[in-house]
Parts: sequence; structure tokens; C-alpha cells
Amino acid sequence: MLFRRQFIFPRQFNSKPEKIMKLLVLGGDGYCGWPTALYLSRLGHDVAIADSFVRRLWDYELGAETLTPIAPLPQRLRAWQRVSGKTIRSYVGDITHYEFLASMLVEFKPDAVIHFAEQRAAPYSMIDREHAVFTQVNNVVGTLNLLFAIREICPDCHLVKLGTMGEYGTPNIDIEEGYIEIEHNGRRDVLPFPKQPGSFYHLSKVHDTHNIAFACRIWKLRATDLNQGVVYGTLTDEIAMDEALINRLDYDEVFGTALNRFCVEAAIGHPLTVYGRGGQTRGFLDIRDTVRCIELACLNPAAPGEMRVYNQFTEQFSVLQLAQLVQAAASKLGLKAELHHLPPPRVELEEHYFNAKHTKLADLGLLPHKLSDALLDSLVNIALKYRDRIDTTLLMPRVNWREPRNDRRMQPGVAMAARV
Amino acid sequence: MLFRRQFIFPRQFNSKPEKIMKLLVLGGDGYCGWPTALYLSRLGHDVAIADSFVRRLWDYELGAETLTPIAPLPQRLRAWQRVSGKTIRSYVGDITHYEFLASMLVEFKPDAVIHFAEQRAAPYSMIDREHAVFTQVNNVVGTLNLLFAIREICPDCHLVKLGTMGEYGTPNIDIEEGYIEIEHNGRRDVLPFPKQPGSFYHLSKVHDTHNIAFACRIWKLRATDLNQGVVYGTLTDEIAMDEALINRLDYDEVFGTALNRFCVEAAIGHPLTVYGRGGQTRGFLDIRDTVRCIELACLNPAAPGEMRVYNQFTEQFSVLQLAQLVQAAASKLGLKAELHHLPPPRVELEEHYFNAKHTKLADLGLLPHKLSDALLDSLVNIALKYRDRIDTTLLMPRVNWREPRNDRRMQPGVAMAARV
Repeated sequence: MLFRRQFIFPRQFNSKPEKIMKLLVLGGDGYCGWPTALYLSRLGHDVAIADSFVRRLWDYELGAETLTPIAPLPQRLRAWQRVSGKTIRSYVGDITHYEFLASMLVEFKPDAVIHFAEQRAAPYSMIDREHAVFTQVNNVVGTLNLLFAIREICPDCHLVKLGTMGEYGTPNIDIEEGYIEIEHNGRRDVLPFPKQPGSFYHLSKVHDTHNIAFACRIWKLRATDLNQGVVYGTLTDEIAMDEALINRLDYDEVFGTALNRFCVEAAIGHPLTVYGRGGQTRGFLDIRDTVRCIELACLNPAAPGEMRVYNQFTEQFSVLQLAQLVQAAASKLGLKAELHHLPPPRVELEEHYFNAKHTKLADLGLLPHKLSDALLDSLVNIALKYRDRIDTTLLMPRVNWREPRNDRRMQPGVAMAARV
Repeated sequence: MLFRRQFIFPRQFNSKPEKIMKLLVLGGDGYCGWPTALYLSRLGHDVAIADSFVRRLWDYELGAETLTPIAPLPQRLRAWQRVSGKTIRSYVGDITHYEFLASMLVEFKPDAVIHFAEQRAAPYSMIDREHAVFTQVNNVVGTLNLLFAIREICPDCHLVKLGTMGEYGTPNIDIEEGYIEIEHNGRRDVLPFPKQPGSFYHLSKVHDTHNIAFACRIWKLRATDLNQGVVYGTLTDEIAMDEALINRLDYDEVFGTALNRFCVEAAIGHPLTVYGRGGQTRGFLDIRDTVRCIELACLNPAAPGEMRVYNQFTEQFSVLQLAQLVQAAASKLGLKAELHHLPPPRVELEEHYFNAKHTKLADLGLLPHKLSDALLDSLVNIALKYRDRIDTTLLMPRVNWREPRNDRRMQPGVAMAARV
């Protein structure tokens, strides 16, 4: 049994936080947003969720499903009320619709808005022109709307925005947290760190970052931009309380993140799908650290006019290292996992320098959950529990960065036959 | 008489260029696009124009008119054929409509696409949320469409894209041409120059730049990004051939550029409207240099996979210096021009370091038309010639960067009364 037993709550459940905040989680039905909302609610904050459910629609579009059978939001919220006694308000709508967004801010009056409500998959943005345009318009317009709405309705509200470590790309110098001091021809300035994003999705986040910095400058808004690494894991203390609270776990080639996909592959004896040589090095973090980082950002709001930037990850790994860790963990569970090196579907360096700073959240009190055997065991066990839901046709990369049109239509015959 | 006499053609009119190119000018009915199309046509290239005429629509929206009475595009093209014997093809449509764009590329098969087809006014983008969102969506989607269309239809075609010097903002270090070598913690890399744009419009150009760099990297496209300064002047050798070819000259607070507006103000004895102390320093260039720079970019295409960046301006001035130059030129014509320092409508530094490199186009052969008394005389004389068309209600800034909503509705009563 994975639920109710796995974790020990590190804090008294009904403890009151030092500061009770009204926190609005945009995209609160999603992979990061949902556990964030529960965590902040458990801590005693007044939490509301907004979601359009478009992430669930994309699953239908791609013929994919989360490994874990997630409940509809109303059921999730009722389950949370049952186990915690706490109520999370919900708003159903899309922040690219300004009237919806504005009326929500007028009603809820948040102290902070936590903005997860973007299309977040690089491969989705690289399917074809329509998906690239959709991703950039959706993400940029949603964030622009949010900036205008905060300015017009609640200018003191703190925007906590999810960016991505992928905004930086892989420069041959150390990556700083958002800004870098440059000395050039005898003069100095602290400037935005140069960005070299690697997909139309990552580009949309860079666009957001520039827009937010400008809005903070001209309107004295407060913003914290969290350049998050690749998240892994699915259970948090709160989610472990009831299966109806279960979080999504994506393993398909479009929305699945590397480590989650490897664990699913290991559980069913599928080779671990390493793209190219696997030397691509990135920052990673446990989803339990995601929720804590959001809390820390909310507790320490940026000053008026400030766009604060944190690099939100805890450890660096190459993709090959991750695969080898999963291989070792699987082996202990009696599972044999081979590594398959696939032709790299993305255009990215397979060997490169990567050293990104990430001290600011630690300075605020983040105690990382480092990637451990226990976590890998837990993830592989979740994959084993839901193995009947695994569709192996979703594992292999079908979106090639080099092509302007990729055929991502469902292949129902193949998919049905391949069901375990 | 301003036409047919003002300029001496520096080259034999019917000379053939070394290399005849098929050149597609997007936004070819606009302030920079139209003289560019004529210039390239005169040189013997096969030129086509695409335009949606939305720039003319914005004049109606703002209750503004170009100082110079421009003819509709079909009349312009007939006049050009009459005086030059050359034909410029035209396509009427909007590049945010992919089918229009794609079918045009299939038919015309350009060697280079010169992309002026964006909303180009900072104040327009700062009117309110709708105008900010429109500007970014219009510009980003148009350019994304163009990148996909080139990749799919004519991958060897050279994209010549108009950026802006305003992408850089006013850093406290020298501004390089697109890229900067950074040494940091003992390591080195050449990275995109950090951008600090100052309006939602300038931000849209930064977004474009990142998107283009990525497309060049993954698809091996060729692109030249021209970070153009503030353009002044209206006549080129070609336009001077016939009044039906006349170029637009905007003096209103939304689309008018600083020097053009000052000349119009001087011509009617209106105080020159200097924003704040006027220490804002920018790069400027004559429109005759704009057209030459485009030619130089087309003659020297970027390599496959390269995004080349040129800073396209010839001289730096502060706004106050420009106003004083216009004041002196007006004085020689017997016109008295006072300087009025207005509360700055924009959020920008009024005193700052500014030293931007601009050697690459000079290295390719650009011989600048430096700002001279003759040019200022000519501009003031054009303003005098069309003084009956000047609407003084359009001169004062009404778009305030600090406000999320600015009322730009027409004030017909005032405007009519103020007609000279």
C-alpha cells in the first residue's frame, strides 16, 4: 500500500503558519500545482485553485494517460476536505480570458498568485507550427494578462512565477540565479543572464521573464521567478493521505519527464530510453521540494519593483546518470533494466559544461530531498502498482526537433495491442 | 518643389546589380518598407511587396494621419512603373495567416525575405492590455509563421529581420552587436547580449530575436537581425522622383519618431516636445541609410545556421541634442522653436551611459548620411509644404507607461478646432 503509510508528517498537521496568506494557485489541477495547493492548504493558508483542465484535454489529444488514475478536481477537493478538514476554493477558467482572471482576483484578493498555468512540455511545443504558436501565445498572453490584472486589481500582490532552468540553455560559463555581473571594456553592470532556450516552450518562458521584469520596473510589481529544474516523484505527504488525492505521473514522450519515464520503463522491463549518449546535464528536484520552494517564495516576497530570480533545483545529473541510478534501483527489486541509446530527437549538446548556482532557496531554508534509493524504490513501486495502465507505445520519442511537422496522431491499433 | 529636383542619383539608374535577387518585402507599404522596396527595385532586383494595410487602419484608430498624403498601394506601384519602367509585385494579406504567407513563398520563391511586417510603435503597445497583447501576439506569431514557412518551403532563403536598438535598453556597459564574450569564474563564452527592452513593443522584438536564434540553430536557417535605431527623414532618391511615390511621415505621439516630430513642430511654431530632461540617448539613422543597410544585408547572407546581428544606426544623439539641432535649423529658416520639457511619459533613464557598437554595416560598405543642416532644412521644408495637414492635438504624449490603461480615443472637437 502506497497511501497513508509511506510518509511521516514532518510537522504537526494543524499547526498554524507564522503568517497566514491567501494564495491563488493557477494551474492547480496539474502535476506541480495540485501538490502545491494541498501543501499550502495543510500549512493553514487560505488556498484557491484556478484551472481550465486543458492539461487533461492534451492527454486526449495525444492518446496518453497519466500512469496514476487521477480524480476529477471536485472529487479531489472533497477528498481533501474529508481528510484534512480544509477547504480549497476552485475557479474554473482560462487566464488567457482576461475577464475570468480579473473577476477571480477581485473576489479572492490573493496575497500571492502562484502561476503554474502554462503549457509546460518542450516536445508538445515542437510538434508543429500550430503547437509552437499555441504554446507561445498561451503562455505569453496568460502571463501578460496576469501582470495587467495584478497592476489593476491588487498591485501589492506577489507574483510567484514558474520559469525553467531550460531558459539558460547550456552556456560554457557558470549559470547564476537570473542575473550576472559583467565587466566589459572597463565598465560594470549587473544584467539579466543571457538566455539560450532549447525549444519553443522554453522560449515562451524566456519571453515571460522579459515581460515580468519590465512590468516590475514600470509598475513596481513584486515578482519571484522560479527557474525550476526537472521535477521527479509524485507523492507528497499530503497526497499520501488518500488515493483520491493521487497526483498525475506522466511517462509519455511528450509530457513525461526523464526520471519518471525511466522508472515506468524499469517496472515493465522496457529498455530505458536514453536520448543520444545521455551526457545532457540538467538540474533536478523532488516534487516535495517543489512545494516547499513555493512556500519559501511566498513567505519572502520580492520588494515592490523587484523581480527576484531563484534557480529551483537541488542536484545536477546527466540523463545517463539518472538511467544508471534507476537501473541499479530496479536491479535491487529484481527488475532488469537495459539502457537503450536512441537517436537524439532534440537538438542539444550531448556533452557540455553545466554548473548552475542554486543557493538562494537553500539560504531561505530549503532542506533538499536528495535523490535516494528509497525514492527510486517508491517510484518504481508506483509504476508496478499501476503497470496495467502503462501504454508502451507512448514511450518512444516521436517529436523530432529537426522537423517542422511531426505526426503525433494516435495509433489506436498499436496502442491497444501493446497494452500489458 | 521637393520632388524631382532635390537629389542627384548617385548611381546610373539602369545599372544592373552584381547579383540579381528575388526580394520579398513584408510590410512594404510602410514607412521603411516602401522606400526599401523602391530602392531595391531601382537597383534591378526582382521585388515583391506584401502588406495587410493594418498600419493605415491604425491611423484611423488613433485619429491620426501621415503628414504627407500617401497614395494607396496600387497607385504607388503604377507611379513607380511609370517613372522607372520597373514592376513590383504585390501580395495583400497578413503574415499571421499562415496559408497566405506560405502560398506567397511558394509562388514568389524569394532569395531573401525582408521582414518589416510588425507593429512598430512603443506607445501603441503601451496604450492598454489589448494593445500590449495585440502587439506581442501579432509580432511573435508573424515571425514564428515566417520561420516555419521558410523551413518548409524555401530553407535556403535568407531572413532579413528588423529588430531594434531598443532591445538592448541602456546598460552601463558598451553595447555590442548582438553577442558579447563573457569571462566568468575563469571560463569564457560568447553569449547573446543581455536585453532590457523598454516597452511591450520592444519586448516583442526581443522575443522574436530569441525565436529566430533558436530556429537558425535547429533548422540551419540563415538570418540577419538588424537592430535598427530611430529612423528620420522621408525622402529617398527614388521617392523624390514623383509625388505619387511619397513616403509616410508620422509626427503623432504614437507613431511619430522624435526628430520627425520636432521638425513638424518647428514648422508651425509649436514648442518642441522634449520628454523629461532629454538626456535619453539613442542611435539614429537617415532613411536613405536604412534602405542601403537592407541591401547590404541581402548581398551578404548569413551562413546556414547563423543568426547574424548588426546594429543599424549611424550616430548617437540625446533627445535634447536633436531638439537643439532642429531649433538651430529652424532659426536659419526664420522659424522660432522653443523647447518644452514635458513630464516624461515613458519609464526610462533620463541620464545614462550609452555607447553602442555599429561597425559591421560600415565594414560592408555603408557610407552614412550624417544628420546635416541640409537634411533638417529639407525635413522642415516638407513640414512647411504640408503644414495644412498638421493636427496639433496629436503632438502631446497621451500614453503614460505608468498606467495600465490610457485613453487614446479621438477628441474630434478639439482636433477640428486645432487645425491650422
